[in-house]
Amino acid sequence: MSTGWDKTQVTREELMDVALGYEPAEVIVRNGRHVNVHTGQVNSDEVAIKGGRIAAVGNLEYAVGLETSVIDANENYVIPGLVCPHIHQWHTYHNGTVFAQGLLAHGTTAAADGFYGPGIVAGKPAIRFFLDEVLATPLKLIFLVPTLSYSQNRMLDFPVAPDSATPDDLMEMLDWPESWGVEETGFELLLDRDRRDPAILRVFEKALAQRKVVTGHGPNLPNEQAVNGWMAAGVMNNHEIITVDEARRQADLGMYVLLREGSSCRDMHATVPALTEHSYDSRAYQMCPDFTTAEQLFAGQQDHTIRAAVRNGLDPIRAIQMSTIQPAEFFRVNHEVGMLAAGRFADMVILHDLAEFTIDRVIANGRVEVQDGELVRDIPQPEYPQWMYETIKVKRTFTPEDFRVAAPVEEGTVTARVIDVLDGYLVTEELQTELEVKDGEILADPSRGINKVTLIDRLHGNEEYGVAFVRGFNLKAGAMGSSVNVFNQGIVIIAASDEDMASAANGIVERNGAFVAVRGGEVVADFPIPLLGLCSDLPYSEAEQSVARILAAWRDLGCTLESPFANMEFITFVTIPSLRISFRGLAEMREDSYRLLPIDVG
Amino acid sequence: MSTGWDKTQVTREELMDVALGYEPAEVIVRNGRHVNVHTGQVNSDEVAIKGGRIAAVGNLEYAVGLETSVIDANENYVIPGLVCPHIHQWHTYHNGTVFAQGLLAHGTTAAADGFYGPGIVAGKPAIRFFLDEVLATPLKLIFLVPTLSYSQNRMLDFPVAPDSATPDDLMEMLDWPESWGVEETGFELLLDRDRRDPAILRVFEKALAQRKVVTGHGPNLPNEQAVNGWMAAGVMNNHEIITVDEARRQADLGMYVLLREGSSCRDMHATVPALTEHSYDSRAYQMCPDFTTAEQLFAGQQDHTIRAAVRNGLDPIRAIQMSTIQPAEFFRVNHEVGMLAAGRFADMVILHDLAEFTIDRVIANGRVEVQDGELVRDIPQPEYPQWMYETIKVKRTFTPEDFRVAAPVEEGTVTARVIDVLDGYLVTEELQTELEVKDGEILADPSRGINKVTLIDRLHGNEEYGVAFVRGFNLKAGAMGSSVNVFNQGIVIIAASDEDMASAANGIVERNGAFVAVRGGEVVADFPIPLLGLCSDLPYSEAEQSVARILAAWRDLGCTLESPFANMEFITFVTIPSLRISFRGLAEMREDSYRLLPIDVG
Repeated sequence: MSTGWDKTQVTREELMDVALGYEPAEVIVRNGRHVNVHTGQVNSDEVAIKGGRIAAVGNLEYAVGLETSVIDANENYVIPGLVCPHIHQWHTYHNGTVFAQGLLAHGTTAAADGFYGPGIVAGKPAIRFFLDEVLATPLKLIFLVPTLSYSQNRMLDFPVAPDSATPDDLMEMLDWPESWGVEETGFELLLDRDRRDPAILRVFEKALAQRKVVTGHGPNLPNEQAVNGWMAAGVMNNHEIITVDEARRQADLGMYVLLREGSSCRDMHATVPALTEHSYDSRAYQMCPDFTTAEQLFAGQQDHTIRAAVRNGLDPIRAIQMSTIQPAEFFRVNHEVGMLAAGRFADMVILHDLAEFTIDRVIANGRVEVQDGELVRDIPQPEYPQWMYETIKVKRTFTPEDFRVAAPVEEGTVTARVIDVLDGYLVTEELQTELEVKDGEILADPSRGINKVTLIDRLHGNEEYGVAFVRGFNLKAGAMGSSVNVFNQGIVIIAASDEDMASAANGIVERNGAFVAVRGGEVVADFPIPLLGLCSDLPYSEAEQSVARILAAWRDLGCTLESPFANMEFITFVTIPSLRISFRGLAEMREDSYRLLPIDVG
Repeated sequence: MSTGWDKTQVTREELMDVALGYEPAEVIVRNGRHVNVHTGQVNSDEVAIKGGRIAAVGNLEYAVGLETSVIDANENYVIPGLVCPHIHQWHTYHNGTVFAQGLLAHGTTAAADGFYGPGIVAGKPAIRFFLDEVLATPLKLIFLVPTLSYSQNRMLDFPVAPDSATPDDLMEMLDWPESWGVEETGFELLLDRDRRDPAILRVFEKALAQRKVVTGHGPNLPNEQAVNGWMAAGVMNNHEIITVDEARRQADLGMYVLLREGSSCRDMHATVPALTEHSYDSRAYQMCPDFTTAEQLFAGQQDHTIRAAVRNGLDPIRAIQMSTIQPAEFFRVNHEVGMLAAGRFADMVILHDLAEFTIDRVIANGRVEVQDGELVRDIPQPEYPQWMYETIKVKRTFTPEDFRVAAPVEEGTVTARVIDVLDGYLVTEELQTELEVKDGEILADPSRGINKVTLIDRLHGNEEYGVAFVRGFNLKAGAMGSSVNVFNQGIVIIAASDEDMASAANGIVERNGAFVAVRGGEVVADFPIPLLGLCSDLPYSEAEQSVARILAAWRDLGCTLESPFANMEFITFVTIPSLRISFRGLAEMREDSYRLLPIDVG
């Protein structure tokens, strides 16, 4: 069964010959403080490498030949490459190559992802494409079959995108040799006996019979019955843990718990006390960044998570174990990655400082890929096929009038429901406030930070859209928008004026998908994401610059959110409390359903 | 992929319905002190069971219906059923049913075994037979493909038994749905480049490509190069660890280390200080009994190992983790066993005392199988096929004269090499001592505890045999013998007189395999092992009585060894220092070879 990881195909005999002293190593890593994640000890063991894999660990003078190249760790710490148990390429809005480069730059050499977003928009071919793109890089992809690419919209009885993955696709993907399990499945279609979807259970049963793991997505599980019911279905881990009580009790019930620190899901300070204060065994826990937005990819992911854990009192070696060998064992890839031991891939990180997790070099497949924080070589991108550029199925041109919100009165004020976005969080609250009515239309009030928000369906060709009010983006002028949101169906725009909202919509459609900043009816900055309307086709440096420009443009419009990408994406439909924008207008989200709400409290 | 474990086939929907409160549990375990091996905590969580699996863990009042039967733990400790990572059915000399019963009686509900001994004698059909026999019991067998059934005799360039498993058999067995990995492979045919056996590497490569584990047998690995070379081949664990330095350094090199306490391999006191004194992370360690002889099966195995660890200072919860969830994760069966969590089999042990590990009840598949140390129900044995009774291929009748040892002189004394057996150990030493010569024959000296020993080939139909002298069995009269030894080729007999040696040989042949005690030319006690000449066909109680009788008879003859089964089996060929008996006479064993030695030091 090919993993897609082995680029050089060194044989076991060749590795043995180096270990046993018959042949010299190709590369040797010396003079480091070896952090052994298996034993929890720090020692001076060296690492010998041949053909991208580790041939031996220990005192390896004998393996140094005339041709052996030496990587001198200069008394820095040497740890295994990080194994990220939960992250999403498509939530970074970058292509698979840039995603892999961003991870490698920060010490992650293996990562679990299932590309569920691409799977919602364009099904199995899109999933396969990104899988192959990532596997062409030095990053080891732990591919997980994305049930959400089938179920995400079904959860809310929402019209499913025409090209979404089907249950048959999921079953087939489990047989792909690169597949190691099932990606984050929610509980919505499992717990209620009358709504239970047998297709998902069949996927679980097949995966478990194949001895693969089933991973879960369980925010706000209502009670322990639900946790047990979900686990009885087959789910083995959960990354949606936000309180220390959840972190303790779900582990008590047998869950492998992921402690998270990502974009707008900075849960570590709340959850890590399970270990640091309540003495729960770290063996039950791993850590992950989960949602990592476009700019955060360049700033750090799994490394960022480790730093957050250490800052919150966790021993750095524990944090590194929870980011290397523990996820490797969980995914049953510990014969390949997660520890520095003969036979495994030669993936490692050299750190200046353990607690600060400051990266000196990153080695993947025995080659230095990152030095002083910089990627040392280009990784060529694949040619993206034309069909990936043709997923914005919107034919009309929008005008400012399209975004008027009718009032029950001609003039005066109404008490309006406003989606209240909280900086740094994905949950929203309901704000009720007075808004001015003019000519039978409820007006936004940028002076008080109240803007309009729209979500336009871009997959069904029906151009359905809803409009509501939002506070928190704080646009004083212009508009910001994108073609990506968590349910993947729509174009989302926040605007201080209807004119700019229309320009943003039209600009996004013209670009086949983009993040845009609009002022005075013109797109003043964009970060194009034409691949499925989700992801950039730009290479690493250009993407980084483009992201910086769009963020600066949004700040110029008044948006002061720490992570505008995150809040923009999650202002739309998702099963997180409380108010969201839907294609049909303002919606209130519940655990596994929603209801439309009028804007006027009336 | 069937594991062979699921007897009741409860559906995931049915488990979910109990967890979620739609249906009551069949069984509930209440009022226990729940030792959570996932978190290291002790709490009062209850366990709800349906159809042999766990439906929920926690406060489960809601799951109790009118028909729910309650198992009251009476404030005792509740832990998961033990998962034994390394033990041998055939080394217990009992059939698969009694083996499973013995394990269950002592709290082990899952165990790894590959039946390599049966595979040496009779190849794949014998392995399949015992696999099916064990799988018909409530014990979950973690079947490992036994490379030793092909390589054991090849290691020493010894004639291979005609029906031994072949490399093709090994490759085929990896495809059996019940297979989880490769059983203990030595290093002898791997490390020396000129002797390397590509067939074994192909088995490793296939197993690892199937994402199965490769387990090792590495006693006295000569240096760290050898450890690395062996791991580079694919080996992931080692149970032959006898010093704290090995326990530390092999873990440093990435080995999963098994700490052992079995029959004549009581290594725990020497190895567990890696954890208790050197603070090595217990995550790198598991524990196992390995070699468990006929009487020890009834006295304890994995439980015995835990007690030894705790007696030597290990925290009981760590010891239990190393005997439950850690081996389950290692073998990648943690979705099925090793922890008390929804979806897993309802296998658990109720303990009166954690440190003493005193067992109150054992539950397998949700049923109480053991109460107050007694099995509560019979498990029917299969019908053993006739071919299993026909493996002693010895046609001749032995006479006392066959066992004379010729001297270089007619009368007087010679300085003779004697195999010196050490009580409680499998290593032997070389004793050089004066022995009397009479009529050109070197005589044993039972008054000084010096007996004769023979090994008779019983598989090739050649009746080759060797004779040597041994000290340690201490027979004052008579003979003891059996048809089983570690290389599986022969009949081994220790005797105080040549007459009794001949009677023992003939008695074993007549019985198609047996342990015998002989006095005055008569078999005075026997424990028949007619299945392949290796294993008893007796049921549990009869086997227990038969074993007690033969041990008593051997003691009557003067044998005071703590574990005569172990020393008798391992007096023969095996790569453990130093002197052994071979078919060709006295032999000195080295790491991966042997040489014949003359008895007369000369």
